[in-house]
Amino acid sequence: MKVAVIMGSKSDYPKVEEGINVLKEFGVEVVVRALSAHRTPVQLTECLEGLEGNTDVIIAAAGKAAHLPGVIAAQTLIPVVGLPIKSSTMDGLDSLLSIVQMPKGIPVATVAIDGGLNSALLALQMMALKYPELTGKLQAYRDEMAKKVLDDDASLR
Amino acid sequence: MKVAVIMGSKSDYPKVEEGINVLKEFGVEVVVRALSAHRTPVQLTECLEGLEGNTDVIIAAAGKAAHLPGVIAAQTLIPVVGLPIKSSTMDGLDSLLSIVQMPKGIPVATVAIDGGLNSALLALQMMALKYPELTGKLQAYRDEMAKKVLDDDASLR
Amino acid sequence: MKVAVIMGSKSDYPKVEEGINVLKEFGVEVVVRALSAHRTPVQLTECLEGLEGNTDVIIAAAGKAAHLPGVIAAQTLIPVVGLPIKSSTMDGLDSLLSIVQMPKGIPVATVAIDGGLNSALLALQMMALKYPELTGKLQAYRDEMAKKVLDDDASLR
Amino acid sequence: MKVAVIMGSKSDYPKVEEGINVLKEFGVEVVVRALSAHRTPVQLTECLEGLEGNTDVIIAAAGKAAHLPGVIAAQTLIPVVGLPIKSSTMDGLDSLLSIVQMPKGIPVATVAIDGGLNSALLALQMMALKYPELTGKLQAYRDEMAKKVLDDDASLR
Amino acid sequence: MKVAVIMGSKSDYPKVEEGINVLKEFGVEVVVRALSAHRTPVQLTECLEGLEGNTDVIIAAAGKAAHLPGVIAAQTLIPVVGLPIKSSTMDGLDSLLSIVQMPKGIPVATVAIDGGLNSALLALQMMALKYPELTGKLQAYRDEMAKKVLDDDASLR
Amino acid sequence: MKVAVIMGSKSDYPKVEEGINVLKEFGVEVVVRALSAHRTPVQLTECLEGLEGNTDVIIAAAGKAAHLPGVIAAQTLIPVVGLPIKSSTMDGLDSLLSIVQMPKGIPVATVAIDGGLNSALLALQMMALKYPELTGKLQAYRDEMAKKVLDDDASLR
Amino acid sequence: MKVAVIMGSKSDYPKVEEGINVLKEFGVEVVVRALSAHRTPVQLTECLEGLEGNTDVIIAAAGKAAHLPGVIAAQTLIPVVGLPIKSSTMDGLDSLLSIVQMPKGIPVATVAIDGGLNSALLALQMMALKYPELTGKLQAYRDEMAKKVLDDDASLR
Amino acid sequence: MKVAVIMGSKSDYPKVEEGINVLKEFGVEVVVRALSAHRTPVQLTECLEGLEGNTDVIIAAAGKAAHLPGVIAAQTLIPVVGLPIKSSTMDGLDSLLSIVQMPKGIPVATVAIDGGLNSALLALQMMALKYPELTGKLQAYRDEMAKKVLDDDASLR
Repeated sequence: MKVAVIMGSKSDYPKVEEGINVLKEFGVEVVVRALSAHRTPVQLTECLEGLEGNTDVIIAAAGKAAHLPGVIAAQTLIPVVGLPIKSSTMDGLDSLLSIVQMPKGIPVATVAIDGGLNSALLALQMMALKYPELTGKLQAYRDEMAKKVLDDDASLR
Repeated sequence: MKVAVIMGSKSDYPKVEEGINVLKEFGVEVVVRALSAHRTPVQLTECLEGLEGNTDVIIAAAGKAAHLPGVIAAQTLIPVVGLPIKSSTMDGLDSLLSIVQMPKGIPVATVAIDGGLNSALLALQMMALKYPELTGKLQAYRDEMAKKVLDDDASLR
Repeated sequence: MKVAVIMGSKSDYPKVEEGINVLKEFGVEVVVRALSAHRTPVQLTECLEGLEGNTDVIIAAAGKAAHLPGVIAAQTLIPVVGLPIKSSTMDGLDSLLSIVQMPKGIPVATVAIDGGLNSALLALQMMALKYPELTGKLQAYRDEMAKKVLDDDASLR
Repeated sequence: MKVAVIMGSKSDYPKVEEGINVLKEFGVEVVVRALSAHRTPVQLTECLEGLEGNTDVIIAAAGKAAHLPGVIAAQTLIPVVGLPIKSSTMDGLDSLLSIVQMPKGIPVATVAIDGGLNSALLALQMMALKYPELTGKLQAYRDEMAKKVLDDDASLR
Repeated sequence: MKVAVIMGSKSDYPKVEEGINVLKEFGVEVVVRALSAHRTPVQLTECLEGLEGNTDVIIAAAGKAAHLPGVIAAQTLIPVVGLPIKSSTMDGLDSLLSIVQMPKGIPVATVAIDGGLNSALLALQMMALKYPELTGKLQAYRDEMAKKVLDDDASLR
Repeated sequence: MKVAVIMGSKSDYPKVEEGINVLKEFGVEVVVRALSAHRTPVQLTECLEGLEGNTDVIIAAAGKAAHLPGVIAAQTLIPVVGLPIKSSTMDGLDSLLSIVQMPKGIPVATVAIDGGLNSALLALQMMALKYPELTGKLQAYRDEMAKKVLDDDASLR
Repeated sequence: MKVAVIMGSKSDYPKVEEGINVLKEFGVEVVVRALSAHRTPVQLTECLEGLEGNTDVIIAAAGKAAHLPGVIAAQTLIPVVGLPIKSSTMDGLDSLLSIVQMPKGIPVATVAIDGGLNSALLALQMMALKYPELTGKLQAYRDEMAKKVLDDDASLR
Repeated sequence: MKVAVIMGSKSDYPKVEEGINVLKEFGVEVVVRALSAHRTPVQLTECLEGLEGNTDVIIAAAGKAAHLPGVIAAQTLIPVVGLPIKSSTMDGLDSLLSIVQMPKGIPVATVAIDGGLNSALLALQMMALKYPELTGKLQAYRDEMAKKVLDDDASLR
């Protein structure tokens, strides 16, 4: 089980960290890369070639005119989860639209702005198609989340 | 190989048709349902219980305050592709935000507004994790798309 | 006289507190719950079943892709006041559209983003249909508000 | 059982008609008025005075800088349902924000842009607090809606 | 020469202060009021009746669903300058649209979000139609502004 | 009594025509010009010099990046009414923001998108400061508008 | 003098045609290509390699999540003019933000949504740095535009 | 090699500083001016006349209703790079639209909101058409940027 997490800039790391930790807790090998679709296009292609055949899902995080997820999706059939990062202006709307509005033929599985945790959970749900043992772990994770909500709920009553 | 396509209203059918056709071309069994998260919540839950254990991916299409994909995602671990439908106002922004901005814990793999084809291709890429034979077909589909672009390109020159 | 205030996450509590206090000042019994439409759908349904027949209005507060008010409204005929909560991005526009743009058949009475006080006052105005004694109290509350504005006005002159 | 439907301009009539018909089907007396908060403020106030004590809910529909619902809400304690009308530009966002973002103290129960049917259903749910006989009718209406969805669903399968 | 500055809430005072000071510097009598279109509609009308015949321009400042300028404009033929105030969410877009998108017949002369100074300068330019002596003062003010820009420019070179 | 109506392109004429007609009905001399701030800046300045001293108000209409009203306002102390025109995209939001968000010092009295009639009425209200005889006519115009609303209202009852 | 016009889809051709014609009128050799950043990334790179050393400016037109201009700009130092195309939803806001909000290091010279003519004029102004003979032609073109405005202006008077 | 950087207000200086420094590192002479299109239109024209014939590119930075880049572009054939500045509200959307949505005939080469560095790099890429020696320096700059990304990438692995 292997996921590659590629961010457009190392400064996005705090936004992907929670997802990386969850992936590791689930026993997934995580490759973490900082590669820019614009500043290092050649190295990005090399990285993707190295992932081919051994990686289940790619999570791509980027802000502003966030081309990284789409550019990756254009070069591989590995499913790409797009994670829009909120930068200093536009409240993340620019990155969301740049990622989700992909033209016909090359989809990106987009999650919420700054939704690092959900990008990991979505990758895990996809991987559960191939690794059924993940299903039980995901259910347990959901049960845990529900328990936390219910504890909060109890504390309010 | 089985995908369920659930739309919030039968009137959304023209927006999901292209994706359904592609899924069938790829040899995928497609269950097509029109169920509302709000008007038929009980039947939606029954439908989802029927899909459990025999369905690979769910595509959920909805417009306006589009809760259907998220409500489905909350009830199953099957990966859910969310397809925002543009309705008579707001240009689809309301459905996009209602689908993509899911809170922590329950992701929806969102594609472009009215992106019916991409919802199917994303489902196929996810399923290729489990059914490797799809990879070759997907590559052939992409080659075909590229050929069409190149033919267009040649016609312009 | 009984109102249930259900928030999607305990972290929304500061946004509903002012409204809860006003309801209590008006002598209304207030049930306060933190239940997620996505993480605890079953418990939410149980909670709603418990409210049936003994609750006058439900106030539902949620942020981001805020499905909670609509999901509640789909399961009960008790009037639901939807309170959009501003989260870390999109300035509350995502929650507002997710709540107010409900499709045909299942309305949610939406108030302003972070409008906790108004959610309570709206609930009280609805309840005054049934409990006419609330009308006088509401009028007194409005008179008090007007007096505060007029005091401010006097202090400026 | 009496509802007043006040629209800012007679040209909004097609947007409120469906709601008026539903109210009448439920046996509610409906007063239909076209009065502008800006062009006929005095007559609006007179109209509201005439409604006091004999009207259960007011539905106020308006477009653009849609002040009508808020201006009405400021002059009465009868619950006001605000119905934003999409006009020739801004896709109804201007009317939505003008209605829903009411400041502290004077709430308006806002429904979707051009959501005429839901404005009526919301009024009926409010009135059911006072007239319990409406609850059964509302449930029947919902059952009918669900049946229609299920018929559509059956036709797709 | 007399201008009335009416704000929807005393908390808006810091946003109108700069404009008030400029008006006073120009020798204009300034009436400063805090009156809400929603919480004190009757007193607002009384205030406007008091202004009739002795006031040249009204500046009306309000935030969120900012009805104050339009409600004032509906009750008088004195020109009304609308000043949208940015509140805690929506970046002032709600107040801007609520003020500027006035329907046919009742215009409001809208200035920029939080544009307190410009609301005063616009009022002065209007008044210069009646009091030509203001023209020279306004020209001197503009010359002063230009001088400040040119001093800044010189300091950069 | 003289108003200059300057539009950025002759194609905007249908959007200003209603206002021009109203001005003429009120007995105002109307100068109608089509001059672009960008394509004919020198001729625009010449035009403005010709208006100085004999024109009461300037109405400036423009679409897209609508600089015309602000550029005019920068060159004269005559009050400028800015009329945002909706063009083929962005629903007029671009022209609205380009006109209303003027920086400190140079205000433009902005009216609604495509609000040609209101631009004329605002100009008339400003001019009534200098020509009190306009007040009666404006009041009659408002009375006429109110009558039309009341006729519509009567026809609905 | 050579400009390459690359569009993401042949269907964008009507949006670039006016610009192509102007370039040809100015005596510029125009290479017209339809290549997708996502569907034909390899052929796009080949195309760009062929342009290197013999092309002055690249105009890149694309809609939705419009990555084409940025992806091109990342692979060459030839200045890239980005032309956002309005597609079936979002009024071109998605393509505008996807093109203009480029991250640090790789600029794209963005023009208006559907601004095909301006993309060509901007390319010509850039090329005039190298080919001064273009300056006279550009001035003549502007004079012609101004003349057309002035003819329109004369026809209105 | 000469670039003029003109900002609408000296307070914009921190947003243009990084670009100015890069231009100087590339050996470009930089003229830095603070001139307002609205408050100092005459001096702006004088400044532009002084730049004619000796300046390669103009960078124009402005916020709110940002007319400066367009007003400059209307007065010269020197290519104008427009830099939208985010001010205290609207997240820079007002300045972006005011700059990029230029009408037919007068283009502005717009970069990202607060994209000071990219405004300088775009100017350099334009100038490389005339000064081929810049190409090598720009390539070295890109190599340096890529190296920094790759160092970051290495540090993450």
